[in-house]
Amino acid sequence: MAGRKPQPLAVPELIVRKRDGQKLDPQEIRDLVAGFMDGAVTDYQMSALAMAVYFRGMDFDETVAMTLAMRDSGKVVSLDDIEAPKVDKHSTGGVGDKVSICLAPIVAACGVVVPMMSGRGLGHTGGTLDKLEAIPGFRVALSVRELRAQLRKVGCALIGQTDDLAPADRRLYALRDVTGTVEAIPLITSSILSKKLAEGIDALVLDVKVGRGAFMKIESDARELAHCLVRVGTLAGKRVSALLTDMDTPIGYTIGNALETAEAFEILHGGGPDDLRELTYDLAAEMLRAAGVSKNKANALRRVNLAVSDGSAVQKMEEIVEAQGGDPSIVAAPDQLAVARHRLAITAASDGYITDIDPLELGYASMGLGAGRRHAEDAVDPGAGIRLHVQLGDEVREGDELATLYASRPALLNSGSARVTTAVRIGKRRPPAPSRIIEMIRR
Amino acid sequence: MAGRKPQPLAVPELIVRKRDGQKLDPQEIRDLVAGFMDGAVTDYQMSALAMAVYFRGMDFDETVAMTLAMRDSGKVVSLDDIEAPKVDKHSTGGVGDKVSICLAPIVAACGVVVPMMSGRGLGHTGGTLDKLEAIPGFRVALSVRELRAQLRKVGCALIGQTDDLAPADRRLYALRDVTGTVEAIPLITSSILSKKLAEGIDALVLDVKVGRGAFMKIESDARELAHCLVRVGTLAGKRVSALLTDMDTPIGYTIGNALETAEAFEILHGGGPDDLRELTYDLAAEMLRAAGVSKNKANALRRVNLAVSDGSAVQKMEEIVEAQGGDPSIVAAPDQLAVARHRLAITAASDGYITDIDPLELGYASMGLGAGRRHAEDAVDPGAGIRLHVQLGDEVREGDELATLYASRPALLNSGSARVTTAVRIGKRRPPAPSRIIEMIRR
Repeated sequence: MAGRKPQPLAVPELIVRKRDGQKLDPQEIRDLVAGFMDGAVTDYQMSALAMAVYFRGMDFDETVAMTLAMRDSGKVVSLDDIEAPKVDKHSTGGVGDKVSICLAPIVAACGVVVPMMSGRGLGHTGGTLDKLEAIPGFRVALSVRELRAQLRKVGCALIGQTDDLAPADRRLYALRDVTGTVEAIPLITSSILSKKLAEGIDALVLDVKVGRGAFMKIESDARELAHCLVRVGTLAGKRVSALLTDMDTPIGYTIGNALETAEAFEILHGGGPDDLRELTYDLAAEMLRAAGVSKNKANALRRVNLAVSDGSAVQKMEEIVEAQGGDPSIVAAPDQLAVARHRLAITAASDGYITDIDPLELGYASMGLGAGRRHAEDAVDPGAGIRLHVQLGDEVREGDELATLYASRPALLNSGSARVTTAVRIGKRRPPAPSRIIEMIRR
Repeated sequence: MAGRKPQPLAVPELIVRKRDGQKLDPQEIRDLVAGFMDGAVTDYQMSALAMAVYFRGMDFDETVAMTLAMRDSGKVVSLDDIEAPKVDKHSTGGVGDKVSICLAPIVAACGVVVPMMSGRGLGHTGGTLDKLEAIPGFRVALSVRELRAQLRKVGCALIGQTDDLAPADRRLYALRDVTGTVEAIPLITSSILSKKLAEGIDALVLDVKVGRGAFMKIESDARELAHCLVRVGTLAGKRVSALLTDMDTPIGYTIGNALETAEAFEILHGGGPDDLRELTYDLAAEMLRAAGVSKNKANALRRVNLAVSDGSAVQKMEEIVEAQGGDPSIVAAPDQLAVARHRLAITAASDGYITDIDPLELGYASMGLGAGRRHAEDAVDPGAGIRLHVQLGDEVREGDELATLYASRPALLNSGSARVTTAVRIGKRRPPAPSRIIEMIRR
């Protein structure tokens, strides 16, 4: 190429080696990530490498090196001055996944420090940050100094990833997103773990979702990702375990920001949907176990139940909301969270049982109502979304309300209506009600 | 990605389709190439797509669409106003490959119009343009107007590819070169053919080389490329055939610019090395056949022999040199081409037969002596290079000169000396002397 200068790093040769199925050594991977940040490795070289990794994979050593190199591309927070065990959870994302909002205060109420870092929604999946911002005044952008102070005082914070953590991951993810290279397990693994390892936590519990509403559609792929995450995270020096969970129907009854936050608050009060409670409690129990606070699941579940029944989980959420700029009284009165004023009811066309609720259709419907983003720069409407009145297996009669749609403009309701009608199916036979928990994966 | 705007062309989806082994339709391929030129398809998307093509391939329809889209990215020359058949040759490149310089005037002397477009050297391979520029005053950069005038007057021109022919190929090749995506047969095919189809020729003869000194090291790969070139070129509407030829030892006795041009001139005078003559005559015969000037190979070879023996090939070369700014008397006196003044003789360490001459080692040795380029922006030394005094199978005695090295600075001779000594092997048994011609491939 005219004007090309000799490169100290032989980038094309490294790409060819990966392309040809050979292994890159840790130093080469560190050089590639560092070069990507300083310009010695161009975007077009990195995307070609990512495509080669899509086809050839990376082994555990390579994935660990990639993870650590991306972690080290930015600030690595130390929380060593906080003595309590520090545990975070990460979900690979789904529809109606408001687990973080109830999970974090429950686990914190049990004495574990939880620096819960979440993301924003895109496409059919919502984002925890968008849901939290349905709470008036709630600030998700804390500085590391503020985070540290809040963890020390409250034991928990619900925040966004700061720009200075793992910037190489953010750049690489943006590139993968537009180059057809998202679906590569080693790159997904290093993307997830690099950010989490930069947080200063002792342990990480992963919620790896599988099904139509998840990033991973096929159980064997999701299981492979979960095993890779656990193994690489462990090799990188953290206690990491994963729950493989079902994402073939939406979680709980709500999809949309304020609607979901309110539903998560119901869990803190001991109410809320059974599937959301099961998922939250199992993840909480695993976090307590990973933190070393509980010896086993039964013991952990007892602590979790107690934190809810004695009001300490609600109190912890109130402390969090207050610390992050919101009015804590909202936690006790979740129905005060503002929902959009235009509504449309979807009713059953026949008698029968709910045999299917397609989370992908509902995710896109919710996005269309204003609750989600088509593009990263779009704004979201906190009050828009969908409230289901049924779950899988419920018996309904013709004319019963199946769902209510919420939007700020009446015109948005119509397109959502078609999708929701398609998504919720009625049949003659009651389907089995499976657990959301498929498998626990630990080293 | 923050700031991403909706794209009319769904580039990530097209990349994913190719990645997943699906076919792109011709319109999609045209859109991708057009988008690559106008910025709607970024370099990082194109390199990811190229890597996906490396793994998944493209079928003939896709490769034809790619070829035509790249051809149509720039000017397509029409030579329809020139009535005689117009035929070009393209070689995939080797070491000591000076065939174009003797082939073009021979074929033109037989009444075929030859707009011979060539490239520059890079790495271990030399380039015809660099060799021609060893002729003082010789201009390889002609405008299309000059090309047309010269073809009309002389019937032949030896020129570089103008910037306005197939610019998409130039951009894509530069990208592939640094992203490990050169070795993909559909992309090689469309790269070679898009330029040639823009030249306004009726037929094209390809010299697909295989062996250590070639781009293709393995005969089955080279054969696949040759078949792909012939099939795609034919589908694109041209008469295209290919010779599969051996590139496991250097062609002729010389490597380096002035040295090779002088050796090519010897062929025009009826002299020169046997292997170079065989290759040149067979390619010339195929060009005459493709042009419709000769019915069969025997007839064509008679015409070629006559053009050399009656002096018309020399005369044609003189006309070409004169038309392109050089002194035509150089053709009759090739020893006047200036070679570098510092020389080093390499001698045989033992008695025996020449059992191997490694073209790759010699190509890099020649580059090191100054005859070639490490990077596209490097200058070349026209007088530098290597003259072998032996070919495969020759008998030698200890102390016989095996090769002479030429360089403009004495310091360059030493490193070349080690490589040449390694490259030329002497053994006890005379090896068989194979033909350079492996196979003729036609539709």
